[in-house]
Amino acid sequence: MIDAARLLDTALAEARLGLSEGGIPIGAALFDADGKLLGRGRNRRVQSGDPSLHAEIDAFRNAGRRRDYRDTIMVTTLSPCWYCSGLVRQFGIGAVVVGESRTFTGGHDWLAEHGVSITVLDDPRCVDLMTRFIAERPELWFEDIGVPE
Amino acid sequence: MIDAARLLDTALAEARLGLSEGGIPIGAALFDADGKLLGRGRNRRVQSGDPSLHAEIDAFRNAGRRRDYRDTIMVTTLSPCWYCSGLVRQFGIGAVVVGESRTFTGGHDWLAEHGVSITVLDDPRCVDLMTRFIAERPELWFEDIGVPE
Repeated sequence: MIDAARLLDTALAEARLGLSEGGIPIGAALFDADGKLLGRGRNRRVQSGDPSLHAEIDAFRNAGRRRDYRDTIMVTTLSPCWYCSGLVRQFGIGAVVVGESRTFTGGHDWLAEHGVSITVLDDPRCVDLMTRFIAERPELWFEDIGVPE
Repeated sequence: MIDAARLLDTALAEARLGLSEGGIPIGAALFDADGKLLGRGRNRRVQSGDPSLHAEIDAFRNAGRRRDYRDTIMVTTLSPCWYCSGLVRQFGIGAVVVGESRTFTGGHDWLAEHGVSITVLDDPRCVDLMTRFIAERPELWFEDIGVPE
């Protein structure tokens, strides 16, 4: 059995790296069923000026092309938004590990209804990171999830 | 009133360009409410080796950062998959124009349920393009929508 908390450390390291770059502190990583890292990434809206680079998308992209995602695990520091949840559903990613869903809840319940294995860790490091970020940069956070002024 | 069929021509030009590059022939474009082009793009899985670049994502990305998408229109040659439908929902894109949904149907009915204005044009040029592509390159098509072997 893979230790989900250990996998989260990789995503959390990406989130912290993003924060150090002036970005939105959300990180993600895609693993195979044996816990081998396939791709890791972070939100790069600020760093790359690219609104399409949510953390999960960046990790998926960095994993490269693949035919079958059923045995893969997407690990993310924050509950996946509808955009990232749609990615998981379309590509048939088998499992999602969520660092926390206190500061934001996207589509992980919807994914569970569609057969995706969901683990919510409620990790206090992830909660703390996003709580502080949202308090400090609300306009950037709302931009990232499509909430207009 | 904006002419949806005219907007589709931009997306279709992107799809044809993608085909000429050896790629998957799906194109998209994001417009504002006045019909001004904000960004255009195409599926670039093959060209960039990037599985995250579905056409709608590429168009969204090329439009750059924006706070409010309520007045924007996403035009795509093919019914948006769950990934691209999730993008539309999360960012509150107000309207989607679909070239065709005969060869593939993603989440456009789900988007309509969530208040997105949906127009399906059933354009024979789009149907013909995808019908031929799927017949010629089924393995590439299935890879692009996450259907394992």
